[in-house]
Amino acid sequence: MTKSKEGKFYFIVIILVVIFPFLNTIEAQRRPTDLISPEVMPDNSVIFRIKAENAKDVRVVGTWNRMYKPDIMMKKDSIFEVKVGPLPSDMYEYDILIDGIPNLDPLNRQVTRDGGYIQSRLMVPGGLGDIIDVKPVPHGHLKAVWYDSPAIGKEQRRMYIYTPPGYDENPQKKYPVMYLLHGGGGDEEVWVSRGRANYIIDNLIATGKAEPMIVVITNGDVNNVGAPLDKSAFVANKDNSGIGAMAAGLFEKSLVNDIVPYIERRYRVIADADHRAVTGFSMGGYQTQNITNANPGMFNYIGVMSMGLFSNVRPDGYEKEKHIAQLKALQKSNPKVYWIGMGSDDFLYKSGVELRKLYDELGFKYIYRENVGNHDWNSWRLYLSEFAPLCFK
Amino acid sequence: MTKSKEGKFYFIVIILVVIFPFLNTIEAQRRPTDLISPEVMPDNSVIFRIKAENAKDVRVVGTWNRMYKPDIMMKKDSIFEVKVGPLPSDMYEYDILIDGIPNLDPLNRQVTRDGGYIQSRLMVPGGLGDIIDVKPVPHGHLKAVWYDSPAIGKEQRRMYIYTPPGYDENPQKKYPVMYLLHGGGGDEEVWVSRGRANYIIDNLIATGKAEPMIVVITNGDVNNVGAPLDKSAFVANKDNSGIGAMAAGLFEKSLVNDIVPYIERRYRVIADADHRAVTGFSMGGYQTQNITNANPGMFNYIGVMSMGLFSNVRPDGYEKEKHIAQLKALQKSNPKVYWIGMGSDDFLYKSGVELRKLYDELGFKYIYRENVGNHDWNSWRLYLSEFAPLCFK
Repeated sequence: MTKSKEGKFYFIVIILVVIFPFLNTIEAQRRPTDLISPEVMPDNSVIFRIKAENAKDVRVVGTWNRMYKPDIMMKKDSIFEVKVGPLPSDMYEYDILIDGIPNLDPLNRQVTRDGGYIQSRLMVPGGLGDIIDVKPVPHGHLKAVWYDSPAIGKEQRRMYIYTPPGYDENPQKKYPVMYLLHGGGGDEEVWVSRGRANYIIDNLIATGKAEPMIVVITNGDVNNVGAPLDKSAFVANKDNSGIGAMAAGLFEKSLVNDIVPYIERRYRVIADADHRAVTGFSMGGYQTQNITNANPGMFNYIGVMSMGLFSNVRPDGYEKEKHIAQLKALQKSNPKVYWIGMGSDDFLYKSGVELRKLYDELGFKYIYRENVGNHDWNSWRLYLSEFAPLCFK
Repeated sequence: MTKSKEGKFYFIVIILVVIFPFLNTIEAQRRPTDLISPEVMPDNSVIFRIKAENAKDVRVVGTWNRMYKPDIMMKKDSIFEVKVGPLPSDMYEYDILIDGIPNLDPLNRQVTRDGGYIQSRLMVPGGLGDIIDVKPVPHGHLKAVWYDSPAIGKEQRRMYIYTPPGYDENPQKKYPVMYLLHGGGGDEEVWVSRGRANYIIDNLIATGKAEPMIVVITNGDVNNVGAPLDKSAFVANKDNSGIGAMAAGLFEKSLVNDIVPYIERRYRVIADADHRAVTGFSMGGYQTQNITNANPGMFNYIGVMSMGLFSNVRPDGYEKEKHIAQLKALQKSNPKVYWIGMGSDDFLYKSGVELRKLYDELGFKYIYRENVGNHDWNSWRLYLSEFAPLCFK
């Protein structure tokens, strides 16, 4: 060992052994450096491992199993292990249940959040997973900005703005814009943390499947300024008002009157309907319907994900005549793509049938995509990867 | 109940009860909606609670206790509970140990990460905590950008750029820049996720304590393009080369030759030494020394946090004569602030004594700040809150 290598070696030892006395004693034994979890095998089966000295019953439960049936891990010495799959290429969320209590996988640094659901992430390559993962392609930038929303009397709300690769280098070029909405209990961070929207769009642009576009990722709960780490600690765990606030119709006003103008004033956009798209899942699919029904001719690309006809949540009561009149005006404005995505196992499946029935009666054109899937992120990432390529063409 | 209220009510019920069948069965029982954890009391004592039906031994361990001595939680029915403190106003990280295994607090959505250490966050108000928390003051924007680093032959590395409130609204104004470096095992995200740098700077600017500044938050491990969620899943859990790569001197080259020019080309900055600051903790304090020693007259505000004289890690062997010559040149360039922060319990305390001894021998001027603290984020957030106000004045 040369002197310099020895120096580096000691430095590493010092950092690893001494820096975190607490983490060393409590954590290091959980994270033996020779253990890998999750390990994706060449056939896309996946091995999960965890060191749990005193545990009796350890299971892994993830979104690869739409019935969320846990896989029981077998103990070898102090290491629990199970092989799952082979799994279809995709991204999945999972927990490790130790004697009934869900844990993150301590060996996996990839953790994502939607609402209060903080879970470990698994990426399986070779198909959809490659559209979701970070690949060696040009990456767009992602900016967290604070904007005022005078239309609803709110100051400083947070949103993310994705600008595509080349945006900064081509100061003359103008871009189309997609507005991307989340579901109940979520916030502006979930399409980034769990939805991977920026990397999905990066990959679609790089392979020529989608047009370079700006993507605006909003927070649809007007009582909630931003994600948990981005609002005062003393309100972050208290406001469970998300769904009620999201159903009140205020976010829709805010998007049309505050957010779209904010973007069109500050970014190089093509400010017409042919270059505006809006899409969202679940609650965001409801908001997408409200926004486009009330503003025909504003968005010519519309995507409704995992949401159908929700007549009973209209805050003013469901007025079928008004809805039909709105749909006729929207139909007249001739949107280029009206896209509906629904999972075969979605608990809102029936509401989707009702929505399509109404649209069929009116001769209102739409593209319908049904996947074998659930009301979950596996569907929503898939939908974004399929809807975005249809926009701005 | 009116029809519309009823509709909203059903919608809420549907979302909460049906949307996450898995989460409902496994998680809901862990998160009774009437439980709060952590609960900060008026005297800044803190109550932690967790529902753990079958657990025998539950403890909470956090950074409020520099010896990391866990507090034992007492069981009442299926709820474990403990009261800690009163605690000094600050931000703390903690785990809940359930029968020896560290868990996140399932009732707390505020989770932060440094390296592989994903922990729950506690904010205690009334002092330093108020400088760290998100307050109702104007917020700067935070942009994750990808940049090329030709000086070290790397393409597309990730960093965060904070622009202060007013940056977009004052297109003629130019700003000073602080370069902010992390420690061993970290990445560009840790000063955001755990360090709260953007909110600390927001609060210091809002109270007139710090000048409006751009803050550039880099990734000091050149083998690591970005944070775990922002690089390919298939390398994210494998590269433990962090410390070695960080000690190799390449990041220092990259900062000087790639990052500073990137910022000064694209942002409205005042591009001189009086308007450049650089600071970092631990490994980043070592890199700060390397950068400023090798480039006298480039940065007139220099902050070395929790790092001293590390003669044995110089990759080319420690050459004392060369170091002294560098320090003399740096001294001659007359930096306005050379600041050293060190915790009384830091395992690197002795190296700090050696560094100051050398500086004293040379008559090299510095400000020394010693806090009662450890080699941890409680020190580093404090240091940022004290160093930033000294810059650009």
